Amino acid sequence: MKIKKLIISAILVALPLQAGFSQTLAPREVPAKVIAVPDTVSPQIQKQIAMPLTPTWNVIPDTAEGWREQVRAGAIATEKTIPALLELLKVKVEPTIINGVKAFVITPAVIAPQNKDRLLVHVHGGCFVSGPGLAGTVEAIYMAGLEHFKVISVDYRMPPDYPYPAALDDAMAVWKATTATHDPKKMGIFGSSAGGNLTLAMVLRAKQDKLPLPAAIAPGTPMSDLTGAGDSFQTNAMIDNVLVAYGASCDKRAALYTNGHDLKDPMLSPVYGDFKGFPPTILTTGTRDLLLSNTVRVHRKLRNAGVLATLQVFEGQSHAQFYRDINAPETKEAFDEIAMFFNQYLKR
Amino acid sequence: MKIKKLIISAILVALPLQAGFSQTLAPREVPAKVIAVPDTVSPQIQKQIAMPLTPTWNVIPDTAEGWREQVRAGAIATEKTIPALLELLKVKVEPTIINGVKAFVITPAVIAPQNKDRLLVHVHGGCFVSGPGLAGTVEAIYMAGLEHFKVISVDYRMPPDYPYPAALDDAMAVWKATTATHDPKKMGIFGSSAGGNLTLAMVLRAKQDKLPLPAAIAPGTPMSDLTGAGDSFQTNAMIDNVLVAYGASCDKRAALYTNGHDLKDPMLSPVYGDFKGFPPTILTTGTRDLLLSNTVRVHRKLRNAGVLATLQVFEGQSHAQFYRDINAPETKEAFDEIAMFFNQYLKR
Repeated sequence: MKIKKLIISAILVALPLQAGFSQTLAPREVPAKVIAVPDTVSPQIQKQIAMPLTPTWNVIPDTAEGWREQVRAGAIATEKTIPALLELLKVKVEPTIINGVKAFVITPAVIAPQNKDRLLVHVHGGCFVSGPGLAGTVEAIYMAGLEHFKVISVDYRMPPDYPYPAALDDAMAVWKATTATHDPKKMGIFGSSAGGNLTLAMVLRAKQDKLPLPAAIAPGTPMSDLTGAGDSFQTNAMIDNVLVAYGASCDKRAALYTNGHDLKDPMLSPVYGDFKGFPPTILTTGTRDLLLSNTVRVHRKLRNAGVLATLQVFEGQSHAQFYRDINAPETKEAFDEIAMFFNQYLKR
Repeated sequence: MKIKKLIISAILVALPLQAGFSQTLAPREVPAKVIAVPDTVSPQIQKQIAMPLTPTWNVIPDTAEGWREQVRAGAIATEKTIPALLELLKVKVEPTIINGVKAFVITPAVIAPQNKDRLLVHVHGGCFVSGPGLAGTVEAIYMAGLEHFKVISVDYRMPPDYPYPAALDDAMAVWKATTATHDPKKMGIFGSSAGGNLTLAMVLRAKQDKLPLPAAIAPGTPMSDLTGAGDSFQTNAMIDNVLVAYGASCDKRAALYTNGHDLKDPMLSPVYGDFKGFPPTILTTGTRDLLLSNTVRVHRKLRNAGVLATLQVFEGQSHAQFYRDINAPETKEAFDEIAMFFNQYLKR
């Protein structure tokens, strides 16, 4: 049974990809290998690395209701972990409506003095389909609790009911409303995976609509290219235990979001956008991340556009594993770096 | 024949590694895959990615004379490319002796005004055994020609004749002599692979011996850990077409250098060193680099020691491919970033 599964996977990753790869230059044959858990990370991250592949990584419901059920099951599982997290980090989460959009206000017991007038806007991950409601606030709770910022997390509308541009419209509605009452020079935007995509798209959209830009942004392992381009879709296939491989569940969810739109539209695949004038940006990824390439490509594009952009890459981590275990020293390290970056570029 | 070669490789990469990996936590089985050349890089880098594995990646001579012959053949091939490179970049290379150590003075036709009083010291790569004489100057010629710095490249002694600490002693002799006549605040050290190891070891040694430190350093894809630890030794095995896999030629050459010394000695594996007080550091690697982990581990360790350290990771590149093609836009990009970094932290 194990062998059968491996053979199926081998066929899957050997399929010619639709876009982003040369059809003429010689490909490379990479033999099967058994990779051990490295000793070069903390025991907590070792545990993340040793975990089996996400059970639903390639479970694709064939109806909208099937997706809703899968999303609901995931959300319930995540929500169960939140009360303990809130208690540990001494953080309060309150639902609200901002400019007609559902959101959460996330407040730590102690706001750091330098963050008194600062506000972060968070856009959650989940491949544009998962993480509704409270389940989407985990990363924002980490930021509020570990780094003592006040955070607004946008509970944007999602497929299968609301494809693009609903999520981005919702995030922009919150951005518009919050920048009307707060100084955008004291504000940052962050989020990972689909939230990293939306963080970048929000800045592109703010530029386009001549809205104020944030003072800094922190896209974590952004789904910056929904066309399938990005070399680590191949190199880290079956190595990343979170997303596992291109064309599986996460990309099927993203397809519900893009819903027939041009995938090269920078509002959908921000790596194709014009990054000139972007605020200082800190990007986070891991060496096993399926989106390693789509993180470093954004970094290079930002640098080539003259943007102050910095990159942190964590040893052995798969997609977005830097906010999976609150007790991992690497988690604190990643958030500390982002907070120091915000502290450097957000006005007090 | 092709299939036979692949099977041999599969056995090689499946062998349990000596150090740096958990023997108890569940490993992951990664199926065989065929990886295409990505479209997300320049045509020049595509050509690098499409190249077959380095022909000598696992050719291990069994005598010192065998090594000398292999090194000589490689050096002759590299030297042949140098006259055209010098002409294209308008750079002059002159052999010299500094404090008893062979070196080259590398001077561009035009030194940039801001670099008039600055001096860079270069330590070449080649797994501590390859790149003697002129063949070791390529990276230094790129830096001088593309970025208009004067560079001293150390032609340090190497195994099989001279194991550790000969190379480091030679580099330090040059460092001592040049900092006696130049202001170290106007000096930087750079080098890749074994040269990245030596760049880091030089700073550790300068700290230990209370010598002046450089104003900034640029270790490219450093061989920072000679114990075999580093997750990308597994994840990028048979994906990196330059070094290809751990335990092959490059590591066998490094073993001639370490020659029975404790591999965890920071002078041999600088990732285990104390990075407190290090000068600003810029690190360069690629997503397919076998030393991706050992580059990002140094970055994290530097950051955790409070050092200003920045990381650039190039899409699709294997080990040190950022100085393989002078015409690749990514080459210029990598050297421009390093030069901007030096410009920021070296006094004029």
